[in-house]
Amino acid sequence: MSDKERFEKQMEFIREVDKSKEIFRQSYVTSGSRHENDAEHAWHLAMMAMIMNEYANEKVDLLRVIEMVLVHDLVEIDAGDTYAYDNKGNETKRERELVAADRIFNILPNDQAKMIRGLWDEFEAGETKEAKFAITLDKTQPIMLNDATDGRAWMEHGVKKEQIMARNKKTPDGSVKIWDYFEKIINKNVEKGRIKE
Amino acid sequence: MSDKERFEKQMEFIREVDKSKEIFRQSYVTSGSRHENDAEHAWHLAMMAMIMNEYANEKVDLLRVIEMVLVHDLVEIDAGDTYAYDNKGNETKRERELVAADRIFNILPNDQAKMIRGLWDEFEAGETKEAKFAITLDKTQPIMLNDATDGRAWMEHGVKKEQIMARNKKTPDGSVKIWDYFEKIINKNVEKGRIKE
Repeated sequence: MSDKERFEKQMEFIREVDKSKEIFRQSYVTSGSRHENDAEHAWHLAMMAMIMNEYANEKVDLLRVIEMVLVHDLVEIDAGDTYAYDNKGNETKRERELVAADRIFNILPNDQAKMIRGLWDEFEAGETKEAKFAITLDKTQPIMLNDATDGRAWMEHGVKKEQIMARNKKTPDGSVKIWDYFEKIINKNVEKGRIKE
Repeated sequence: MSDKERFEKQMEFIREVDKSKEIFRQSYVTSGSRHENDAEHAWHLAMMAMIMNEYANEKVDLLRVIEMVLVHDLVEIDAGDTYAYDNKGNETKRERELVAADRIFNILPNDQAKMIRGLWDEFEAGETKEAKFAITLDKTQPIMLNDATDGRAWMEHGVKKEQIMARNKKTPDGSVKIWDYFEKIINKNVEKGRIKE
């Protein structure tokens, strides 16, 4: 591959991932004016990583965490956002996302396609301390947004506490301190009737 | 400050910066459906940093570049986005942004307020190799979006080539290779009449 071809492939990928700005999640931005999109969500997780990494259970490689959160939802450009409590959607999620990863990451030159795939696989497996911490951020950031918008997304979907707790079984693995804070926020929202008992 | 106070301040900052998702820039997202906001823009620059850092004139500390681009527009939460070619707005920009930096960064505990201020100051000064490269990304990403949307933002504002070239005087300082690519894109758009000669 010539230098020019390499550069063109990289720029094509940079243009392609712009589509993340049009993949909308169920959470609302704090003003409640609209749903949050994947690009904003990834940026917000990266900001959290910068500010909150002192609470990781084990000291993490911050660059690795940030790189993981920046790319973790790119597959949704093709696979779409699957809502946490959409059981049917979650049955086919993995399969749809694998196909998406193959197309989207392979726009890049081979070495970089592998690099991004490595980050995504590491996040999905959730075994390294960096992946565990990235998952803690990914799971708690929407709780923060839901709390800031008076539980709107929870109420729209009639979400139950047991669903949230089941989904967050591994959240303390990245940071007990961050999870403790958000567990209190969940309980407060149960008391207020925004999350079903 | 107690541990609890420290944590609360950090979370308040994380909630506050959500407002970046509602600060809109003049560039359109590639689909042309709407303007891009600051959070998406910062995420896109961080993606570019990950993929394009091999083209930096000097080898850069990637984490530092990414941290800088993630926070570089936070001041616009209060100061608003000042369009590149808004001469009147640019006269008061620095002053407005300094007031904003004081309020927004100081939501954080003191050590982290200083850390973010250090990143913002470094970006604004544009003297380190990391800041130079971050600026190259910040200046070229909107050219990519404008090109992808057939020059819409340029045409809406009647932008002239000499304005773009003046604004990009320092863009090659971070990466000659990235600037060379975008200079060709600018010339193509001049030929197509999307940028005034």
